[in-house]
Amino acid sequence: MSAAETDALELLRGRLAELADVRALDALATWDQLVMMPAGGAIQRGHQLGTLARIRHERATAPEIAGWLGELEGRDLSPLDADLVRIARRDWERAARVPTDLAAELSEAHSDGHERWRAARAEDDFAAFAPALERNLELARAYGECVAEDGQGTYEALLSDFDYGLRTEELRRLFGALGEQLAPLVEAARAHGPIDRPEVPREAQQHAVEGVLRRVGVDEEGWRVDVSAHPFSTSTARTDQRITTRYDDGGIESLLSSLHEFGHALYERQIDPALERTNLGTGTSMSVHESQSKLWENHVARHPAFAAVLAAELAAGGYEVEPAVLHEAIVAVEPSLIRVSADPLTYPLHIVLRFELELALIDGELSVADLPGAWREGMMRLLGVEVPSDALGCLQDVHWSEGAFGYFPSYALGCLIAASLWETLELQEGPRADALGRAEVETIKQWLGANVHRHGRRLDTVPLVETVTGRGLEIEPFMRYATPLASAGARM
Amino acid sequence: MSAAETDALELLRGRLAELADVRALDALATWDQLVMMPAGGAIQRGHQLGTLARIRHERATAPEIAGWLGELEGRDLSPLDADLVRIARRDWERAARVPTDLAAELSEAHSDGHERWRAARAEDDFAAFAPALERNLELARAYGECVAEDGQGTYEALLSDFDYGLRTEELRRLFGALGEQLAPLVEAARAHGPIDRPEVPREAQQHAVEGVLRRVGVDEEGWRVDVSAHPFSTSTARTDQRITTRYDDGGIESLLSSLHEFGHALYERQIDPALERTNLGTGTSMSVHESQSKLWENHVARHPAFAAVLAAELAAGGYEVEPAVLHEAIVAVEPSLIRVSADPLTYPLHIVLRFELELALIDGELSVADLPGAWREGMMRLLGVEVPSDALGCLQDVHWSEGAFGYFPSYALGCLIAASLWETLELQEGPRADALGRAEVETIKQWLGANVHRHGRRLDTVPLVETVTGRGLEIEPFMRYATPLASAGARM
Repeated sequence: MSAAETDALELLRGRLAELADVRALDALATWDQLVMMPAGGAIQRGHQLGTLARIRHERATAPEIAGWLGELEGRDLSPLDADLVRIARRDWERAARVPTDLAAELSEAHSDGHERWRAARAEDDFAAFAPALERNLELARAYGECVAEDGQGTYEALLSDFDYGLRTEELRRLFGALGEQLAPLVEAARAHGPIDRPEVPREAQQHAVEGVLRRVGVDEEGWRVDVSAHPFSTSTARTDQRITTRYDDGGIESLLSSLHEFGHALYERQIDPALERTNLGTGTSMSVHESQSKLWENHVARHPAFAAVLAAELAAGGYEVEPAVLHEAIVAVEPSLIRVSADPLTYPLHIVLRFELELALIDGELSVADLPGAWREGMMRLLGVEVPSDALGCLQDVHWSEGAFGYFPSYALGCLIAASLWETLELQEGPRADALGRAEVETIKQWLGANVHRHGRRLDTVPLVETVTGRGLEIEPFMRYATPLASAGARM
Repeated sequence: MSAAETDALELLRGRLAELADVRALDALATWDQLVMMPAGGAIQRGHQLGTLARIRHERATAPEIAGWLGELEGRDLSPLDADLVRIARRDWERAARVPTDLAAELSEAHSDGHERWRAARAEDDFAAFAPALERNLELARAYGECVAEDGQGTYEALLSDFDYGLRTEELRRLFGALGEQLAPLVEAARAHGPIDRPEVPREAQQHAVEGVLRRVGVDEEGWRVDVSAHPFSTSTARTDQRITTRYDDGGIESLLSSLHEFGHALYERQIDPALERTNLGTGTSMSVHESQSKLWENHVARHPAFAAVLAAELAAGGYEVEPAVLHEAIVAVEPSLIRVSADPLTYPLHIVLRFELELALIDGELSVADLPGAWREGMMRLLGVEVPSDALGCLQDVHWSEGAFGYFPSYALGCLIAASLWETLELQEGPRADALGRAEVETIKQWLGANVHRHGRRLDTVPLVETVTGRGLEIEPFMRYATPLASAGARM
């Protein structure tokens, strides 16, 4: 290896380490904003995050990176360094293709859109939001055209920001089949009528969340668990994982969402330490990330055997409930208006609708003015639900207000991939029921670490799924998981 | 104003805003490290802080800044912009004069020194620390020579990093007089024998700290109060002030230290909002900063009238104590080994010793090998205290291990300036005793805001003190404060 070559690799690795540090600081500042910061800090925090974003963009798109990559490409590198160079090239090309002016316009439009959306949702006034959505769509199309690779449509180019390598056609196929095959299950579930939901005091929830998280390995050495308005997870280092939950309602959502966020965090935690402070040391895509949270939410927390563990932790917190009753409430299917509180069977249908609509919006086949009507029609068609207002309809989610088109699919893909991984895991390691009844999850964690987590960004979504399961993206494992849910309690 | 000139001012202001943001992020990452971060995050946090420091140094020393300053100097600017340019020039010159290699060597030696000091203190093994201290001294001399202005000695040049414009000669005069005039008071205090100190349960301390801070204006909108191993204060914005305390011991140190940190934070909070995100929007020097903490610690918390407020808050937390008994414990004079737990009268003598020794070390008049002996001799001479070990002697403080020579004087200057300001305040606003008995501090806060805080860095230490008090740095006000303390309880 020549001196120049070594040097280019060192310089590239130095820059990537710096970018990883800046990303971690951004994560910290955002976490603090949502969890710790007094309200008085808000305006300056906006400036601070803006400055970090500018520094990051400037250093990520600097021309010297292309110089280093040019020196390194085609050389004989270790497999790790070859991946590092390959992904650095991809990231650099995508970032550098966006003109500075467009990047600034996007950023402004997203802040503006977010503010207008908040106001419009509060007032249930879609018309007040429509111009901002129109502007976000125009800019998203312009952005998509900049970053599109050969043969890619605009929507697929946008998708690549969240899930590199995913094809729009593939999503049409998967989500079309999901819509068709879930519809009769929703119909069947509706026949059961409403379920009694437990009313769990806040103290018992809190006790159970702490107890369950401790059981799956959340310790003080490497984790924080806090409260925030919306649950999320973040990390400032592989060994500093932070998850949040909330205890507002009287249900057991705090338990489900804690294990959901634990799944995200465990992914980041079990990435190969050799990838830390490189461009490869994070989860590979939004859909694989969501598969990790959904695996812990759907397949662990909602497993019939795990209900005994949850009930025991609730009992230790002073709330007595039969495991069977608890499980029934946890898996109850009830078509409803709001995505974030949807049950595990109907959840993907909320995404199927959003995918259809955002694809049509980007392609110009649906006008912004027609969105509320299309939303109502879709909710009736897919879920049999009447939408009483736009606030409970097409204004419910933040994503489009911030210009995030192509993000929604990852939520449903996460459900599909989680089910595929879970079947493979049980095939290779045996059924988990007995172990889960004893809250033993070490095998699950190790299997995920060895098969999914450690790769970081070295494998994109589809290659990763193929490597682990031997099959591509498919809906059958999820359908096998979802079908028994349609008849409440059937899995017990 | 020409277009180029406007442009240079805008560019300069933009860079200064960015540097202020980076400073705030550094403050946040450090606060998080000491208060929130799981231990697992330590190594990566070190990298993250290192990256921030590099980015900050690179952007603070960039040659374009000199270009902008050149365009702006001598032009007709508003008084605020003229100050902004003046201080920007000073900061740029000081930073740019340090060769990159030396900056890197300093940073490495300080980390290394810190690690060796920790180990050496734990083992009470000065010899193990001596080579690192020797290295820090060499590098500090090299650094001081780089940044020295015309006619400045090396020590004075180092001092300027913490207190710009302070003269070594002035410190010799002040600290010499302090040593002489405090000695007989220490002797007198020793005659009284030891004082009974209250043993306050942790819950009562905590309750009282929260209550007292609420009384002086700490609200949820703009403040956080947390626990850390060593109390400190920091801010990520003028309206996001964070202070910490600790409750380990059974004494009332938590109350004193909370008001101490409140004084630091209030200074930052009351700086003119127009200075936010400029180079002028922080406290002007370490000694003025310390004067603000000492004002709240010595002149408010230790005021005989305020003892009733403290006692009431402790009582509300379940701990009953007579105000007079509490006050006696709070002002009790007892010569001791450790600076950070010293009483208000002997505290400055700990600093007089450190100033003598670090000046002699930098000037080469004291060798590192002779430091432990000189420390013992000084403690006996100034405080009449026998030093049983280096761990309780010259290894007790972190500062020299991190190359901070010239920092210690600010602690004693803070005591002197606080006393001067307090006398001026009472002269202008009338005695505070009655109001303090009712926990009314609004006048104090407003006076400090209008006279001291709002200026930010626009006035250096000595001009600020002269503007407010009409006099220079002097020891008499502090001596008038300290003299009654020598006879315990006399001020009641």
